[in-house]
Amino acid sequence: MSNQKRNDEPGQRINVAVLGATGVVGQVFVHLLARHRLFYPAVLAGSDTRAGKCYCDEVSWVLPFPIPGDFRDRKISALDINTLKENDVKIVFSALPADVARRVEPELRDCGFYVFSNASALRYDEDVPILIPEANSTALNLIKNQGYPHKGFVAANANCSTTGLAVVLAPLVPLGIKEIFVSTYQSVSGAGYPGLPALDIMNDAVPFISGEEEKIIVEIKKILQLDAAVFPHCVRIPVPFGHLETVWLGFDGDAAVETVRAAWDNFKMEPVGPSFPVQPVQYLEDAGFPRPGLCFHGEPAGQQVFTGRLRKVGDKIGFTLVVNNLVKGAAGGSIQNAELFVAEFGLEG
Amino acid sequence: MSNQKRNDEPGQRINVAVLGATGVVGQVFVHLLARHRLFYPAVLAGSDTRAGKCYCDEVSWVLPFPIPGDFRDRKISALDINTLKENDVKIVFSALPADVARRVEPELRDCGFYVFSNASALRYDEDVPILIPEANSTALNLIKNQGYPHKGFVAANANCSTTGLAVVLAPLVPLGIKEIFVSTYQSVSGAGYPGLPALDIMNDAVPFISGEEEKIIVEIKKILQLDAAVFPHCVRIPVPFGHLETVWLGFDGDAAVETVRAAWDNFKMEPVGPSFPVQPVQYLEDAGFPRPGLCFHGEPAGQQVFTGRLRKVGDKIGFTLVVNNLVKGAAGGSIQNAELFVAEFGLEG
Amino acid sequence: MSNQKRNDEPGQRINVAVLGATGVVGQVFVHLLARHRLFYPAVLAGSDTRAGKCYCDEVSWVLPFPIPGDFRDRKISALDINTLKENDVKIVFSALPADVARRVEPELRDCGFYVFSNASALRYDEDVPILIPEANSTALNLIKNQGYPHKGFVAANANCSTTGLAVVLAPLVPLGIKEIFVSTYQSVSGAGYPGLPALDIMNDAVPFISGEEEKIIVEIKKILQLDAAVFPHCVRIPVPFGHLETVWLGFDGDAAVETVRAAWDNFKMEPVGPSFPVQPVQYLEDAGFPRPGLCFHGEPAGQQVFTGRLRKVGDKIGFTLVVNNLVKGAAGGSIQNAELFVAEFGLEG
Amino acid sequence: MSNQKRNDEPGQRINVAVLGATGVVGQVFVHLLARHRLFYPAVLAGSDTRAGKCYCDEVSWVLPFPIPGDFRDRKISALDINTLKENDVKIVFSALPADVARRVEPELRDCGFYVFSNASALRYDEDVPILIPEANSTALNLIKNQGYPHKGFVAANANCSTTGLAVVLAPLVPLGIKEIFVSTYQSVSGAGYPGLPALDIMNDAVPFISGEEEKIIVEIKKILQLDAAVFPHCVRIPVPFGHLETVWLGFDGDAAVETVRAAWDNFKMEPVGPSFPVQPVQYLEDAGFPRPGLCFHGEPAGQQVFTGRLRKVGDKIGFTLVVNNLVKGAAGGSIQNAELFVAEFGLEG
Repeated sequence: MSNQKRNDEPGQRINVAVLGATGVVGQVFVHLLARHRLFYPAVLAGSDTRAGKCYCDEVSWVLPFPIPGDFRDRKISALDINTLKENDVKIVFSALPADVARRVEPELRDCGFYVFSNASALRYDEDVPILIPEANSTALNLIKNQGYPHKGFVAANANCSTTGLAVVLAPLVPLGIKEIFVSTYQSVSGAGYPGLPALDIMNDAVPFISGEEEKIIVEIKKILQLDAAVFPHCVRIPVPFGHLETVWLGFDGDAAVETVRAAWDNFKMEPVGPSFPVQPVQYLEDAGFPRPGLCFHGEPAGQQVFTGRLRKVGDKIGFTLVVNNLVKGAAGGSIQNAELFVAEFGLEG
Repeated sequence: MSNQKRNDEPGQRINVAVLGATGVVGQVFVHLLARHRLFYPAVLAGSDTRAGKCYCDEVSWVLPFPIPGDFRDRKISALDINTLKENDVKIVFSALPADVARRVEPELRDCGFYVFSNASALRYDEDVPILIPEANSTALNLIKNQGYPHKGFVAANANCSTTGLAVVLAPLVPLGIKEIFVSTYQSVSGAGYPGLPALDIMNDAVPFISGEEEKIIVEIKKILQLDAAVFPHCVRIPVPFGHLETVWLGFDGDAAVETVRAAWDNFKMEPVGPSFPVQPVQYLEDAGFPRPGLCFHGEPAGQQVFTGRLRKVGDKIGFTLVVNNLVKGAAGGSIQNAELFVAEFGLEG
Repeated sequence: MSNQKRNDEPGQRINVAVLGATGVVGQVFVHLLARHRLFYPAVLAGSDTRAGKCYCDEVSWVLPFPIPGDFRDRKISALDINTLKENDVKIVFSALPADVARRVEPELRDCGFYVFSNASALRYDEDVPILIPEANSTALNLIKNQGYPHKGFVAANANCSTTGLAVVLAPLVPLGIKEIFVSTYQSVSGAGYPGLPALDIMNDAVPFISGEEEKIIVEIKKILQLDAAVFPHCVRIPVPFGHLETVWLGFDGDAAVETVRAAWDNFKMEPVGPSFPVQPVQYLEDAGFPRPGLCFHGEPAGQQVFTGRLRKVGDKIGFTLVVNNLVKGAAGGSIQNAELFVAEFGLEG
Repeated sequence: MSNQKRNDEPGQRINVAVLGATGVVGQVFVHLLARHRLFYPAVLAGSDTRAGKCYCDEVSWVLPFPIPGDFRDRKISALDINTLKENDVKIVFSALPADVARRVEPELRDCGFYVFSNASALRYDEDVPILIPEANSTALNLIKNQGYPHKGFVAANANCSTTGLAVVLAPLVPLGIKEIFVSTYQSVSGAGYPGLPALDIMNDAVPFISGEEEKIIVEIKKILQLDAAVFPHCVRIPVPFGHLETVWLGFDGDAAVETVRAAWDNFKMEPVGPSFPVQPVQYLEDAGFPRPGLCFHGEPAGQQVFTGRLRKVGDKIGFTLVVNNLVKGAAGGSIQNAELFVAEFGLEG
């Protein structure tokens, strides 16, 4: 990494870019990267109409935390390869809309950039990993199929609901998962901004999220290399942040509550980067938990998945989970993926 | 019914009493009975500390409709057998708390009253029907095991979540239901008043409702005489009225989407009373429905159960339902039960 | 009215049209007119892209009441003069957006239609009355300045916040109002559909509503012919229906609490139409009232303005009010205006 | 401070106690003190029934931040003077209910403790300062009238709504404030826990908060030594955190918008402790601000008061403000007061 010029404030950090920085997921990137130990968001890129304007004037900031002070007055950049190069950026975080992502992300890859993307655009391409370090860290090697290190690559996130499920199922795969019944209670922030009109969701739940159930079915199987039947129901509820999911699992053989609990408790990760939780799945004993309201809790904040209410009925194992849809399920997951990449491959290219 | 004195306003109506008239379910009784064609709420009974006071001063009215004008200034009665007799009341609607109900309802039965109860207190007694006319109208005959017509009786409602499920499953029983996976999205009004503190449920979902899952498991089997495995998850969400439920069903054999849909469409009821829906299950084609926000819709208002998103994955049938937890799932269901009783047995005793 | 063909179901009603029938105010027109005694909504007009389509498929219904059964499958008409004529419509209710209204409403007037409008487009024209029967019923005569009866006319509603204030101030004008301090707590439905993104208003209040304060200042003076100083603050809060307003009034001389209370209690209206409240201002004694949650209460529902917490500090009189922003403050007010017109001028032209 | 034993983690901090540590304000104390540079919460005291139990089991944690890790398993202490002494505590933060505070706080004072209290119990005693360093830092000297340094003392916070108003009015006092019209939009957390039932405040606003208007009137005059007329309206809205207030001011002479703005911009504080904002009043230019959703923003977080929408109508100055009712308006204000005390008087006694 010797030839890598670093931003010297507040230390030697790797310059990165955030594409789609004014959207909800873009905001979370800015929030998380502003004080990241390793990466520095040198470029906040937005649509052409926003380029040159002040970040705080263009963003509809919806997070329960303030805009990081240093970035309030940051100028938004156009989405432009020269800008990235001038800022010594190789790692690009994409919070682009799917249609823009489908056009832009392959171009960036061809130009040698390392794209960590939240968009679903390329997620189902065979050589694009849907990467969740807790679940399938070796899938990162798929980037070689995209031509890395001679070219750049795209590494995708899973869908936010899938991410929570994948993390808690990962240590259970050896038990032989056969059937997954999952009902989601998804927060409003998952629909982005402007997202849902208030009149549609105040006091109401909407039992349909376009494409969401299909994503869960396809992605969970791809990520966990699983041949299970998946029965999802996806519902939007009037909660701002955090997705709750209720789950019943069927197994090939028999699975005990204690086995599942032990699998979660013993599931540890090496902290290869600052966004890695040591304990990816945190079980909460209290019956009233986990709740979406807790979703920014955990260590690191928003990166753990919480489970609770573990029990057995007949031969099925039931439990609930809460995932932070914006951190672990979106921007935080991408950052974690980039940390994994840096740890495994370095930035020499 | 010749010796039955009737309130002459607004016509010949049967005097009834509402016990626990200031609670949330009590309010719904008042709301529904105020303009009921057959019954007249001659007695609104409350706790001793409320007796003699004005209804509108004692009730924390939470319904999205006004207090019926004639009842605003009605005096609350003590829960007293003489008061019932003086008002020629035989039919008593109970919205009492479980502990009070366990003491009071058997006494009323012994004194010859016909108690239609929302309380869970006696619901699991062998000779007390959990009556849902759409599902098990013949269970009304259990009142004879309680000594009717020589004595009074208690006929119970199902739990509100169970009620919605029971109504939509009733016409599917012939298909051989083997497994029921149900996740509830229950509204705040289901917890009564004061119920949940605002700080616990604003922006949050609570994945535990004490005793609720057990009630669904026991009641759905008792009502539908079903030997199925039930896998419930009960969750409170920040919605004021209406319970949404997501369901996956397994069958003994195979069930087609068309068969299920036809079973609902062809499911008709004879309107033996004004609270009876002709079409108990109303399927909504639009993917975004049914929603809790619709729960006071339907004909009669709040008495139909709405379904939607019917589909098949593997050998399982999935769908969603919305039930009005306060009308069909509580007061309206009780009133329907009383209408059934009057139609079948009359009031002569 | 002999040559006026009437819809014969459910009786002899006057055919009317609703322009902008799928918007929030349009929905309220449909809700109110569906069972109106005098008017029958023969034409529901929408934008060209909606014409010919089924009402229930095009509307994003947000009211807490069901779509009136007969209108669910009603075909939406294009906004077209021939359609109005074919349906014998003379009275047109406009819930059009301001820019469309500015173009369309004068055309309709020139073609002889009687336009009762919620749009602010023509509201400030000198010969267009901002009509609130409780406050300035004689302003209806301004329609003659527009050429009536030789031509049609436009009669406007006030802004929803102004309406509530105007109704409660009307009987106080003789006391010599000098200063009006008003802070509004406006519901989300006032912004129409889609209106506010949920992420902007869930858990938050927005202390700015574009143009609203200016409207209150100008309109209250025009309606009440008042030379008072007006100090408004307009704020949106996360409540779906009903506007609360807190008010302090200064008077030329001195005003007693009792005088104000008596002015409201003695303020009665002749019910010249079914939408007229006999008691336009209803004072609620309980300190916790009036609340927006009550806004569909009253007689007729949603047409009364509720006041409460009347008190004096120094020489100022303070109180709160709640107005139903969609009924009295919008569609219901327009309908009332049309009832007044029919009562005073008939439909002969 | 030589004889003061200090907790050595994470440094030399002064041991303090939090009384009423499980309530909402108590939680904020724990949240703020857990990482405070100067104070260490060595004692978390609760009611006798909670003593000896684990903090995380007893608290209904409602903040949007996690329970500080080190305090999750902390044992709750009984409210006991020996416990305080054993832990070398002299500074006591009180989040006690008013009735308990009235009994306990004078006892603690008599025993030599320095009580910084959120309770309103002693707030109106002549020799108890209602201390807001931004507004009346010299009022701290009143503790001498209580017998300090020979005895302990009680220094009170203002009511949360008053606090926001006092901070923004403090630099305007020289302009000659004559009339204050203030309408509050108060969040649910201001009512503590359990506080408001969800059914009372979901979708609704409650235009009455018992005793609140009286507190504003009395306290603002005592704090600012002001002889102004105060016209308050206090309203609860369905927002979890942060109080918005709309204000109109009348002045003895004339006040220009520019003068007011300059007074706020030039209003700076010396940071005598880590909870002191350098800029107590932060003006926000954007018309849609300040909003309650921002209330945890600022530097230090939650300690600044935000203003906006400054304008003049006639001779009155209007603006809005947002104060964090739990930080600056409660626990954070108390901590600031204790920092001021330590800076001015030290801990030697």
